[in-house]
Amino acid sequence: MLAIDWGTSSFRAYRLDADARVLEKRSAPLGILNVQQGKFADALESQISDWLNADAGPVVMSGMIGSRQGWVEVPYASCPAGAKEIATGMREVSWGQRSAWIAPGLSTRDPSGTPDVMRGEETQIIGALDRLPTGSSWVCLPGTHSKWAEVRDAKILSFATHMTGEVFALMKAHSILGRMMSDGPTDPTWFEAGVRRAQDAGGLLHHLFGVRARGLFSELPNERAASYLSGILIGDELASIGNTQGPVHLLGDPSLVALYRRALESLARVAVVLDSDAAVRGLFTLAQHLPRS
Amino acid sequence: MLAIDWGTSSFRAYRLDADARVLEKRSAPLGILNVQQGKFADALESQISDWLNADAGPVVMSGMIGSRQGWVEVPYASCPAGAKEIATGMREVSWGQRSAWIAPGLSTRDPSGTPDVMRGEETQIIGALDRLPTGSSWVCLPGTHSKWAEVRDAKILSFATHMTGEVFALMKAHSILGRMMSDGPTDPTWFEAGVRRAQDAGGLLHHLFGVRARGLFSELPNERAASYLSGILIGDELASIGNTQGPVHLLGDPSLVALYRRALESLARVAVVLDSDAAVRGLFTLAQHLPRS
Repeated sequence: MLAIDWGTSSFRAYRLDADARVLEKRSAPLGILNVQQGKFADALESQISDWLNADAGPVVMSGMIGSRQGWVEVPYASCPAGAKEIATGMREVSWGQRSAWIAPGLSTRDPSGTPDVMRGEETQIIGALDRLPTGSSWVCLPGTHSKWAEVRDAKILSFATHMTGEVFALMKAHSILGRMMSDGPTDPTWFEAGVRRAQDAGGLLHHLFGVRARGLFSELPNERAASYLSGILIGDELASIGNTQGPVHLLGDPSLVALYRRALESLARVAVVLDSDAAVRGLFTLAQHLPRS
Repeated sequence: MLAIDWGTSSFRAYRLDADARVLEKRSAPLGILNVQQGKFADALESQISDWLNADAGPVVMSGMIGSRQGWVEVPYASCPAGAKEIATGMREVSWGQRSAWIAPGLSTRDPSGTPDVMRGEETQIIGALDRLPTGSSWVCLPGTHSKWAEVRDAKILSFATHMTGEVFALMKAHSILGRMMSDGPTDPTWFEAGVRRAQDAGGLLHHLFGVRARGLFSELPNERAASYLSGILIGDELASIGNTQGPVHLLGDPSLVALYRRALESLARVAVVLDSDAAVRGLFTLAQHLPRS
């Protein structure tokens, strides 16, 4: 089969054998926002027409390719959902003599009725199911929009999104805090100080101003301010999740996962890092549920 | 006397008689960031040289004019502080045969040792002291950086800053939420829905994403999204303040004060709106404590 992880800014394709082994992989900065005039079939052919010509098996895609800005808008599946429920929501697209399947995103509602959504992360979670313990567990996928999902009996029960990464980028680029920041690698000591600060009373909007106030008093070096800010934001996310039982399973970009692991451990929480190739395995699992043609 | 409220973006001057009555006032978009090459004396003369020539009494200024980017950096006075303590921290600047006094800002530290600062708001609070009840009371000055001060026995005991207004502007201008927002007046129903939403568990970073998710499900009209976002941010600020006893005294820009009053009342809190001319009266009070020459 051919597994395609097609997001906003990047395109990743994998050719798999019948045992889910990756035979070949390709990637390009050809996210859906970089595809001209909605010519997704042309874009796909430009990357893997040789695989398609060789009839390498069914094509299954997930990510923002199934959004309103993508190839076709595939309606969200609803929580609770496992591989079967998500696969049932897949939509087929075709061009010439060829066709491909696009996975739906997933939606949930919290007790207040407020909706939440993901697109792509559900496939990663499906791909990581066999690494999770039986019973209930928490999976966190850090990112621009971090996702926290509660999984039980191979189903995603519910989840919540936090705009942590986007707010960090905005504050750094456009706020009064950004003006005092110089670039540099994340400083672990200041990052952890931010994580701890976020556990204090006062609220995020107050703790953010503390970055500036500490700078004014020369109690926070400019080259550490971004690390402290990052700690405050990730620490606030962890405080908001509350007292989730058991370890937090981290999934996704290795550098972000390392940062979240550090934050969790500094709060005496247990972090378990899952492999970062879950998207491919999730797409393989979804392909097992395709209607037999 | 001449009272000057000189901030980042605006300049306001008042000529007062000995009973604190305003005889004349002038304002200009001549904030400290608009004064070329630090020529503050020239800027002041350009606005009120006739008053200065008429020897209209001592000149007392407050606001960002006393910051590192202003005329001279006046070190922060420390909490707890009343009019006398703040006046003691004033610094004199002179040019030609003339001189003026610049009030210090105010600093505090919370139990964790994290500092906080204000510059200008302390003078507004001093000017509002005679409108506050005896005993302990809370004063809120909404704004780009909202200030919450605890006042007792005519002294500012402590305060906390929230970056509410700045984060609202950033999210509207630069975030994924801003893309779904069209302009319009604040909608009271959606504003209050945001205030209530912010009282739910989940945290601010999660509630922010809810603005997008509700939009995706067509459960939040684009022209109401900014009102809902504003409610979430102000509601989060109110949730973070916690259970302050008694009424909240609101001081500052009338349209923002009206919004905060609405938010407080929707949470069954009592709001008392103070007059918005407190800065002038605060400068008059500080002038009473000038060293006699």
